[in-house]
Amino acid sequence: MLDAALQDGTAHRKCVFEVFTRRMPNERRYGVVAGTARVIDAIASFRFTEEQIELADFLSEEAKQFLRDYKFTGDVDGYREGDLYFPYSPILTVRGTFAECVILETVILSILNYDSAVASAASRMVSAADGKPIIEMGSRRTHEQSAVTAARATYIAGFDATSNMEASLRYGIPASGTAAHSWTLLHVDDSGKPDERAAFRAQIEAAGVDTTLLVDTFDITKGVENALEVAGTELGAVRIDSGDLGIMSRRVRAQLDEAGAFNTRIIVSSDLDEFAIAGLRSDPVDGFGVGTSVVTGSGAPTAGLVYKLVEVDGHSVAKRSSGKATYGGAKSALRAYRASGVAVAEVVYPQGAEITRKQNLAYRELTVPMIRGGELVDAASDPFNLEAARATHRDALQTLPWEGLALSRGEVAIPTHFVGFPEPAE
Amino acid sequence: MLDAALQDGTAHRKCVFEVFTRRMPNERRYGVVAGTARVIDAIASFRFTEEQIELADFLSEEAKQFLRDYKFTGDVDGYREGDLYFPYSPILTVRGTFAECVILETVILSILNYDSAVASAASRMVSAADGKPIIEMGSRRTHEQSAVTAARATYIAGFDATSNMEASLRYGIPASGTAAHSWTLLHVDDSGKPDERAAFRAQIEAAGVDTTLLVDTFDITKGVENALEVAGTELGAVRIDSGDLGIMSRRVRAQLDEAGAFNTRIIVSSDLDEFAIAGLRSDPVDGFGVGTSVVTGSGAPTAGLVYKLVEVDGHSVAKRSSGKATYGGAKSALRAYRASGVAVAEVVYPQGAEITRKQNLAYRELTVPMIRGGELVDAASDPFNLEAARATHRDALQTLPWEGLALSRGEVAIPTHFVGFPEPAE
Repeated sequence: MLDAALQDGTAHRKCVFEVFTRRMPNERRYGVVAGTARVIDAIASFRFTEEQIELADFLSEEAKQFLRDYKFTGDVDGYREGDLYFPYSPILTVRGTFAECVILETVILSILNYDSAVASAASRMVSAADGKPIIEMGSRRTHEQSAVTAARATYIAGFDATSNMEASLRYGIPASGTAAHSWTLLHVDDSGKPDERAAFRAQIEAAGVDTTLLVDTFDITKGVENALEVAGTELGAVRIDSGDLGIMSRRVRAQLDEAGAFNTRIIVSSDLDEFAIAGLRSDPVDGFGVGTSVVTGSGAPTAGLVYKLVEVDGHSVAKRSSGKATYGGAKSALRAYRASGVAVAEVVYPQGAEITRKQNLAYRELTVPMIRGGELVDAASDPFNLEAARATHRDALQTLPWEGLALSRGEVAIPTHFVGFPEPAE
Repeated sequence: MLDAALQDGTAHRKCVFEVFTRRMPNERRYGVVAGTARVIDAIASFRFTEEQIELADFLSEEAKQFLRDYKFTGDVDGYREGDLYFPYSPILTVRGTFAECVILETVILSILNYDSAVASAASRMVSAADGKPIIEMGSRRTHEQSAVTAARATYIAGFDATSNMEASLRYGIPASGTAAHSWTLLHVDDSGKPDERAAFRAQIEAAGVDTTLLVDTFDITKGVENALEVAGTELGAVRIDSGDLGIMSRRVRAQLDEAGAFNTRIIVSSDLDEFAIAGLRSDPVDGFGVGTSVVTGSGAPTAGLVYKLVEVDGHSVAKRSSGKATYGGAKSALRAYRASGVAVAEVVYPQGAEITRKQNLAYRELTVPMIRGGELVDAASDPFNLEAARATHRDALQTLPWEGLALSRGEVAIPTHFVGFPEPAE
């Protein structure tokens, strides 16, 4: 495409591409924007090496030179990281020449699709956990680099910590972890007989009595007994990683209380997703460890975001493939709220248009400038700060109507209204 | 764990960890080992930077020094990349001290879980396509680094090419691609009216008449008409990316044939998975472009592989958590075949044990040495070569009993037999 566009002169047409989704996966009520800061960084630093250019031996010399000189010089606007999105929310708008924008499609979508899939799943788990802490521990169940950004996305959505040390290093996310079954199994006596107490003793000596002991390697009741015998009633926590977590947490709570270990917390893990977490709401669980489900988007491993050309030299364009018709033109968006603070609609309108605002509603601008002329806009400002993204998400979630937090399949939390557009093409 | 093990002296116990899965996701019939060469490379080059070590401020000075000096010195054996696996197949066995092995858990599982999930999905699609070529074009729907290794995994499983140029550069996979809708939309006249023919004309001038024109941006019938008008009957292919692909491919075939474009191929894409591909088997489709479904494992985004301690100082160990009991001890595996070449069982036995082989069956050793004393075994040999992995997969697939290729949920293709073990712990 690049080569052909350079040859027929269309490469330099001023274009606008837009990132949006046509529907929420699995009929969820809302999505969470994540990856924006990574995208902005990727766009600003996008370059080609000579080795990469030489591989593309099907390219003309002109196209190769274009790649050698490549540096994005256009503008980017988008939703704040951590904000909510709905079908057709214009979460990222990229403006520049066709050639410079089309080249960015894969990196933009890869980042936003994966990170938003994880954050969208994580947010539902945070709602389900109802204030109890969640540790992300899914690194082993996704690609080794995805694992690092998955931790980042879950933190934006409200998780409390990650077991991924590289994510902690790269993004400053609190690190946390517990011992594995291999730790207990390692402790055998000379005849090969398991010695769970030796494992617990060594862990407490290294990590202090406030540590979390994994009590289900052999028999949970005996495991708790051993834990208390070694740690005493000041033990920080026990973790249960198998069995019916509701039943087991109640039994273990009773056992701990009977021993006087009232402050010893119970952490549970083992294939938890938002539904399993919600199912434990009335049980004496103090925290969750979530792995596989969150790093794979809990049934929706990609956000289904697309990157579509919507404007060429000031003209709106849109494809008419069956089932995929969309509004053309560059767009901005507002979120409308009742006086009570509850969101009522996503209002999408042509960029730069004046639209009539209703007197009884408050509005928040969703689209903020991120890149101007290829340069980051105020790199220290909100869209690029992880704690700010976390706050954006927390605040946005509080404005959802109650039904928007339902875990079941259903309607999106708020409708998307298109205002100020001509009738869509048929 | 590392710190506690160094303190209590268990860090240096000779251990064996094993990678296996307890079940096939979504009741599939078989899995495909992928990522092995990446794992072997990651193990051999696994090091810690000073920045990483300093971040772990909870570690003792001894543990920090251990990380500074870290270099894996043990042995690794495993299944060839591209081979099939079944529940409890010991696809990777890692032998060394507890400390040096436990450190590798995340990187080993991340790679194998993601790459094998993608390869396992891709293999089903290749079977469903029944010899017709498939291009991997899912980069935009997964993390930007996963995208590169996803292309690699699909190639091992029998895909023909990838649209991911970095995968082509890094792994030598054939690159291929087609134009996007944005290419057609870019071509508007001065009044903003779409000009599909101008887009087709420019593409043919740049890429030759053997290119693939995307004909469904506006109206497919008109698109094919425009394509033929511009390219003539020697046009390489048309791509259809929306609508009912069965109906549309038949209509387009009739239209092409009527115009005399008998050799113009029809490529289809648009949310294809193995079931959709199988559903098109009787239609005049010449090739498939597969994106989202394959890079997300087509409903099984992680392979569910675990890394478990199975041996400590020569003693078998295994946890007894409910529902998770397994055989301890280091293992090897054979695949048993009838004289006809059809596989009948996966035979798992204690490493080094002599087991009785049945006279009427042939056996293939599944476990090959990959690392000895921290060094790669014959880096040029099969397990580390992508074309060899592709051949391994093709050959292994041909030995499956017919029912093993069924796409429906069901029993695994062949049972796993444990031979030479003591009765499992209850």
